[in-house]
Amino acid sequence: MPHRIPRMQRASSPSGHRPVMIAIAGDSASGKTTLTRGLVEALGPDRMTAVCVDDYHRHDRFERREVPWTALHPEANYVDIMEQHLQLLALGQPVLKPVYDHDTGLLTRPVLVEPREFVVVEGLLPLHTRLARACFDIAVYLDPPEEVRRGWKVHRDTTKRGYAPEQVLAELDRREPDSATFVRPQRRWADIVVRFAPIAGREDPPGTPLSAELMLRPTIDHPDLSAVLPGGDQRALHLKLLRDTDGRPVDALHVHGYVGAEEAGVVVKAIWESLGIDAPVPASLGRFAEGTSQPLAITQLLLLYHLLDTARLHGR
Amino acid sequence: MPHRIPRMQRASSPSGHRPVMIAIAGDSASGKTTLTRGLVEALGPDRMTAVCVDDYHRHDRFERREVPWTALHPEANYVDIMEQHLQLLALGQPVLKPVYDHDTGLLTRPVLVEPREFVVVEGLLPLHTRLARACFDIAVYLDPPEEVRRGWKVHRDTTKRGYAPEQVLAELDRREPDSATFVRPQRRWADIVVRFAPIAGREDPPGTPLSAELMLRPTIDHPDLSAVLPGGDQRALHLKLLRDTDGRPVDALHVHGYVGAEEAGVVVKAIWESLGIDAPVPASLGRFAEGTSQPLAITQLLLLYHLLDTARLHGR
Repeated sequence: MPHRIPRMQRASSPSGHRPVMIAIAGDSASGKTTLTRGLVEALGPDRMTAVCVDDYHRHDRFERREVPWTALHPEANYVDIMEQHLQLLALGQPVLKPVYDHDTGLLTRPVLVEPREFVVVEGLLPLHTRLARACFDIAVYLDPPEEVRRGWKVHRDTTKRGYAPEQVLAELDRREPDSATFVRPQRRWADIVVRFAPIAGREDPPGTPLSAELMLRPTIDHPDLSAVLPGGDQRALHLKLLRDTDGRPVDALHVHGYVGAEEAGVVVKAIWESLGIDAPVPASLGRFAEGTSQPLAITQLLLLYHLLDTARLHGR
Repeated sequence: MPHRIPRMQRASSPSGHRPVMIAIAGDSASGKTTLTRGLVEALGPDRMTAVCVDDYHRHDRFERREVPWTALHPEANYVDIMEQHLQLLALGQPVLKPVYDHDTGLLTRPVLVEPREFVVVEGLLPLHTRLARACFDIAVYLDPPEEVRRGWKVHRDTTKRGYAPEQVLAELDRREPDSATFVRPQRRWADIVVRFAPIAGREDPPGTPLSAELMLRPTIDHPDLSAVLPGGDQRALHLKLLRDTDGRPVDALHVHGYVGAEEAGVVVKAIWESLGIDAPVPASLGRFAEGTSQPLAITQLLLLYHLLDTARLHGR
């Protein structure tokens, strides 16, 4: 049983009590589930509901052969029902969510989803429409370099979903136009853009975790890290003011993969203590299939900060 | 292509335009589908959406063996999701409705339901909760005598659903406590209670349709039939002031199965003309599997009157 954060205000979320909502948007195999799982483990499944919104397909796999869209095209999905369900969850109401069975390619029995204190919504298109975006207190976009994501997708789909590598690569190519048109533009709407990537030009030893670059947009209030991160980009952990790819000003928090536990610990402690919670930092942060990553831990902790801070601010 | 009633106000119902909602509640094999079908045929499927709310089961047929409830017990159903969907439909919003497959006993792929100008909701429990009842402009309860309903159920389930008569009778007995506790109390909430039954003490020739007794409660405004139905209970079609089984005052409209087309036609004409619609009476009224019934036609016409009158009053 991992350390979990004690409740701040109320016991469980009764129906109608509005949860804090966070979106984790990103393309297929961009790391959404890894990030989400760490949040649910830190808060506990009795406090956080996890929802994947990639099941709102109009067609099953066989009908899809007859229509001109890939599965991620909005025309191939009940986007209005996804919006409706997000609104209901944001209002604290349960929904009967559709389910797509990846094994059979069939649409199957829906599941009841009841929002707890916190709801994490991950998927390909949770930030696609204005009404959907309006449901979230915190919006995150996962933005790994395409070559990293392709590697992750080939690895996952060949080891866990039974595909051959050339099938996965062909599918990536087939989806590329829709990814470019519908998935990647959601980066624009994120409060935090997360990029896990190797650092260009470094030859870190095998097993070094990927570094994280976190774009902290001024659309929400981030924890004040100026005391523990005095600036300068020489250290393994630093904050840098820069222009985003779209020209807008942004704070970029860099966490290098080789950062030491002690150096990372100072930042973790600063973020955690600013929340004023009388509990140890959740032990589950940073864990992933291949081990533990300080960049992942700090990313998850930052999202946790925003979840708990929003709950505190809104008296939720 | 049967005669259909021309639109009164607007073309089709755009999303968000509130439909007129009617509930047809009643026990299994009480005639809900026959009544509903006539309404949809009269208005046309482009103007009326038909929804059956008996698919909100928590369990499939196999899981149900492990739980202490019959399929019609509220605990065995997502009653809160049914309420939510009725509210959304009443607000003009689409819903993704669950589907129970009667052939396999499995819960399967949900269907998109989009409310048109009129929505007819039939089922075992549409009037069970206060929030569900609040969604309806007109509430109808089908109340055939139990021996009539048992006969209908045995006939339907043996000819169309492949059961043996003794299986159907055993199932009726098994459900009886829940019917008494949850289904029949909904009669209390109906604006119109419909009872199709043979007339006690008469020996009508075989093939004579069942008579209809319509309890017209003062909870909604019924058409004024005093000019064409001067009272007295000697005629085949008459209106009678009486006390309902619960002691409350009610108008009872009796339409005997042997009523002549001419005598019924006078009442039909009066109801129809009071709506001021420049179109013939829909030809589909009164049709059922075994032929045509004047009592059924007048019942459907009365419901049609309320649907169109509500649409007119509310500018819908």
